[in-house]
Amino acid sequence: MNSGSEPESVSLQFQIERLHARYAHALDADKLEDWPNFFTENGRYRIATAENEERGLPLPVLYCEGRAMMRDRVQSLRHANIYEPQRYRHIVSSVLTEKTSATEARSSANFLVIRIMQDGAAVTFASGRYQDRIDLKQMKYDERVVICDSRRFDTLLAIPL
Amino acid sequence: MNSGSEPESVSLQFQIERLHARYAHALDADKLEDWPNFFTENGRYRIATAENEERGLPLPVLYCEGRAMMRDRVQSLRHANIYEPQRYRHIVSSVLTEKTSATEARSSANFLVIRIMQDGAAVTFASGRYQDRIDLKQMKYDERVVICDSRRFDTLLAIPL
Amino acid sequence: MNSGSEPESVSLQFQIERLHARYAHALDADKLEDWPNFFTENGRYRIATAENEERGLPLPVLYCEGRAMMRDRVQSLRHANIYEPQRYRHIVSSVLTEKTSATEARSSANFLVIRIMQDGAAVTFASGRYQDRIDLKQMKYDERVVICDSRRFDTLLAIPL
Repeated sequence: MNSGSEPESVSLQFQIERLHARYAHALDADKLEDWPNFFTENGRYRIATAENEERGLPLPVLYCEGRAMMRDRVQSLRHANIYEPQRYRHIVSSVLTEKTSATEARSSANFLVIRIMQDGAAVTFASGRYQDRIDLKQMKYDERVVICDSRRFDTLLAIPL
Repeated sequence: MNSGSEPESVSLQFQIERLHARYAHALDADKLEDWPNFFTENGRYRIATAENEERGLPLPVLYCEGRAMMRDRVQSLRHANIYEPQRYRHIVSSVLTEKTSATEARSSANFLVIRIMQDGAAVTFASGRYQDRIDLKQMKYDERVVICDSRRFDTLLAIPL
Repeated sequence: MNSGSEPESVSLQFQIERLHARYAHALDADKLEDWPNFFTENGRYRIATAENEERGLPLPVLYCEGRAMMRDRVQSLRHANIYEPQRYRHIVSSVLTEKTSATEARSSANFLVIRIMQDGAAVTFASGRYQDRIDLKQMKYDERVVICDSRRFDTLLAIPL
C-alpha cells in the first residue's frame, strides 16, 4: 500500500488518522447527530460480520446509504426505548492507508469498542476492523464498512460503531 | 482543531503522541517515581468521572497540583499495603491535537487500562479519555484530566492512570 | 529516544508504525504463512513473560530463530488439531521508536490481543509489550520480543502474537 512520495504518505496518514479519531470521539461523546456529517452526501455505511464477509454473503447487520438515511437512523435511535443508558469507548489502532487516486484513499484499521454499563461494569462490546474509502477533497467517508469479529450481536448494535 | 501549516501539525502530533506513549510506558513499567516529571512544576493532575464532568460537579476522584504533591502521592502509594501485586497495561488511541498558542497545545485521547491480577487474569480496569494542556517548550503536561467512563472505582484507583 | 532531525524521526515513526500495523493485520486475517516474511532471514522471535524478563530468566514461552524455523512453526500450527476455530484482534498503541544506527532502529509498543471464541464471546487473550529491533533497509524485524504481562498461558499461545 501507499504509493507516492513519503512526505505525501505521512501527510495522508496524519489526515486519515485524524478523521478516524474525530469519528471515535463524536460517537463516544454521544454526538450521534454529528455522525452523518463524517460521510459524503451519498456515502455508505455498513456493519457486517467477518463470517459473512468471508463467505461473500451480502447480509449486513446494518446498512445506510446517504446522509439522509443516516439521519433517519439517528432519529429512530433517539426515539427508541433504550432501557439501559450506556457509554461507549472506541479504541482504534493499526491504521493502514493507501492513496488510490487523486481524490480517494483507502484505509484499514482495527477497533475495539468497550461498553460501560449503568452499574459501571465495562465489557468488550465489539471488535473488528474498519474498511474505508475516503473522499480526500472533503476528508469524509465515501464508504465505511465495519466488519465485526463476532456474529453474536446485541440488539443495541444498532448504535453506529 | 489544528490550526497552522500542515507540516507543523504533523510535527505537533508526533511530539504529543510521543509524550503520551512515554507516559504510558513509564506507568506500565511501574516507574511511579518518574510520573511527576511528565508534568510542569505547577502542573495539575485530576481523575474525574464522566458523570461528574457532565454535571459540572467539581468532585475529582484524585487531584494533585504541582510535582511536589505528586511525589508525596507516589511515596504514599509505595508505603501503602497493597495486598495484591499487579500490572497495568495502557492502550491509548484516537489522539487529537490542537495548538492553542505559541507555547501551548491541547490534546484529547481515548484510553483503556488493563489490570493483570496476580493469578494472571486480565480485566478492564478503566476506560475513558485524557484531556490535556501541554507546555510545548518543556513538552510536559500543564494539566492532565483523566475522565473515566465508569463511576465504579476500585480503591486502588489511587494509582495514576 | 529518537536522535536525528525531526523530519527524519517523523518518517521513521511512520514507517515503523506501518510495519507494526501490517504485522497485526496479517495475523488477524489468519495469514500465518506471511508471518515469517516480516522478519529478516535470520530474524529472531521470542515470547516471554514479564516475570521472567524481570528476573533475567532465559525461559521463553516460544523461540524461533530464522525464517525457516518460523515456517516450520506455522506448518505445525496448520496441522495441529485446534479444537475451537477462533479469531484474534490486535490492538497496538504507544509506539516509541529510536534510530540506533544507520541501518537499525528499536521500537517499544503496547499490545492487547482479543480472542473471539466460536460462540462469539470476546476475551482478553494477552496483553504486554513488543520490544523490537528493526532492519531499516528491509523494514523487517531483526528481533521481535513479545513480553506478556501474564504468566498464565493457554496452550494455544503457540499462535504468534
